[in-house]
Amino acid sequence: MYSYPLQPRFNETDALGHINNTVLATWFEGARDKVFQVFTANLAPSDWRLILAKFSIEFHAELFYGDAVEIRTWVSRIGGSSFDVTQEAWQQGRRCASGVAVLVHYDFASKQSVPLSEEQKQQLQQL
Amino acid sequence: MYSYPLQPRFNETDALGHINNTVLATWFEGARDKVFQVFTANLAPSDWRLILAKFSIEFHAELFYGDAVEIRTWVSRIGGSSFDVTQEAWQQGRRCASGVAVLVHYDFASKQSVPLSEEQKQQLQQL
Amino acid sequence: MYSYPLQPRFNETDALGHINNTVLATWFEGARDKVFQVFTANLAPSDWRLILAKFSIEFHAELFYGDAVEIRTWVSRIGGSSFDVTQEAWQQGRRCASGVAVLVHYDFASKQSVPLSEEQKQQLQQL
Amino acid sequence: MYSYPLQPRFNETDALGHINNTVLATWFEGARDKVFQVFTANLAPSDWRLILAKFSIEFHAELFYGDAVEIRTWVSRIGGSSFDVTQEAWQQGRRCASGVAVLVHYDFASKQSVPLSEEQKQQLQQL
Repeated sequence: MYSYPLQPRFNETDALGHINNTVLATWFEGARDKVFQVFTANLAPSDWRLILAKFSIEFHAELFYGDAVEIRTWVSRIGGSSFDVTQEAWQQGRRCASGVAVLVHYDFASKQSVPLSEEQKQQLQQL
Repeated sequence: MYSYPLQPRFNETDALGHINNTVLATWFEGARDKVFQVFTANLAPSDWRLILAKFSIEFHAELFYGDAVEIRTWVSRIGGSSFDVTQEAWQQGRRCASGVAVLVHYDFASKQSVPLSEEQKQQLQQL
Repeated sequence: MYSYPLQPRFNETDALGHINNTVLATWFEGARDKVFQVFTANLAPSDWRLILAKFSIEFHAELFYGDAVEIRTWVSRIGGSSFDVTQEAWQQGRRCASGVAVLVHYDFASKQSVPLSEEQKQQLQQL
Repeated sequence: MYSYPLQPRFNETDALGHINNTVLATWFEGARDKVFQVFTANLAPSDWRLILAKFSIEFHAELFYGDAVEIRTWVSRIGGSSFDVTQEAWQQGRRCASGVAVLVHYDFASKQSVPLSEEQKQQLQQL
């Protein structure tokens, strides 16, 4: 598990006075950088090797502007060519949202999924 | 089922050349207006009565800037105080993404879920 | 002048109950499609020929979720290799925001600005 | 002048491979937190006292995903009831974008601008 700190931005609130639900998708993607680096060390989009097959986000408590947020991220499943990343957003000692993203190792040229190498699996396990 | 047309905006693309996955969350929320109006006819946020408990989005094909998108929306489950909204994003005759949002009828003052009335259930069924 | 209709999305509001100011930048860019098409008819990003040098947005009245918005767009200055696009956001018969974007005809390969052709100038004038 | 560090998120890129121009508006607003705290110490939106009259952003060089960004912020003009905040986005030792926001001390109840107090002016000067 690794931790990613962030400060909510004012534009991420909505008219209900809290952080809008769609923002969690951007926070969680932002916090997946370390996962992306297993496949593209320098994060160059021209050398990207992952596609997102699916993600889900569950809301447990409201998140607010004005207090720091911690995103916790870990790899929760490693399959043949895909894996799951589980993430949580914590604020003021509370787990406010959690989510799972299913990522696929992918070759954009041939438009096909590619098996994960042993080294990649090991690196994912360390996250 | 109802249809909601939209034109992708340039800022909704990402460095992989397609629409970023997090954008689907905003398109789907945008297209839930008719669902929101069952509970808040004039869409005034001060009179809001729904919270989002969970949503998931699955990706079937890439979406691109430059071609119109149609969001299809329908209510796929009606429970005691919650219900599911299923949505699809179509472009160029292809279903590119689909998702489910679980919404809860909610009283923001007492911070509790509220049973759906018969009239609300009927209106949701018509969507 | 051309008109571009849009419906504000719930996630575009902020905790002050109105449309967040940063959203105007995305609406205005979205409404510049017809300008982009003068340079890239099919809107393919791989064939893009414009960069944004500068933009400014002025706020005259609040914009709200729940009512349709009209973006009005026209070319307000045509120079040698750059031009200005002026835009306004109208809601409920009121001009709520206005802005100017300075766009430069650009060659991404040589990383240099390129003079506007007579044909491009004519097409811009028609907008 | 104060500094605000951030890491670009993948969804903030666009199909041209760089950070989309509209994202700068959200980064700059995010980095204005310390300015907002002069007027609303706990950043509670229900006690907000500023409106944005205008902002402009100028682009000097492309910003990319993968490298840290520093936002530099200072108050560049203090008037009777309004003031200017100037901001710059730096990446890899280069000033990539700069902007000015004009903020007005405002009473949302009476919908009128309010003169800046001496104490507020002093605190703004220290930024």
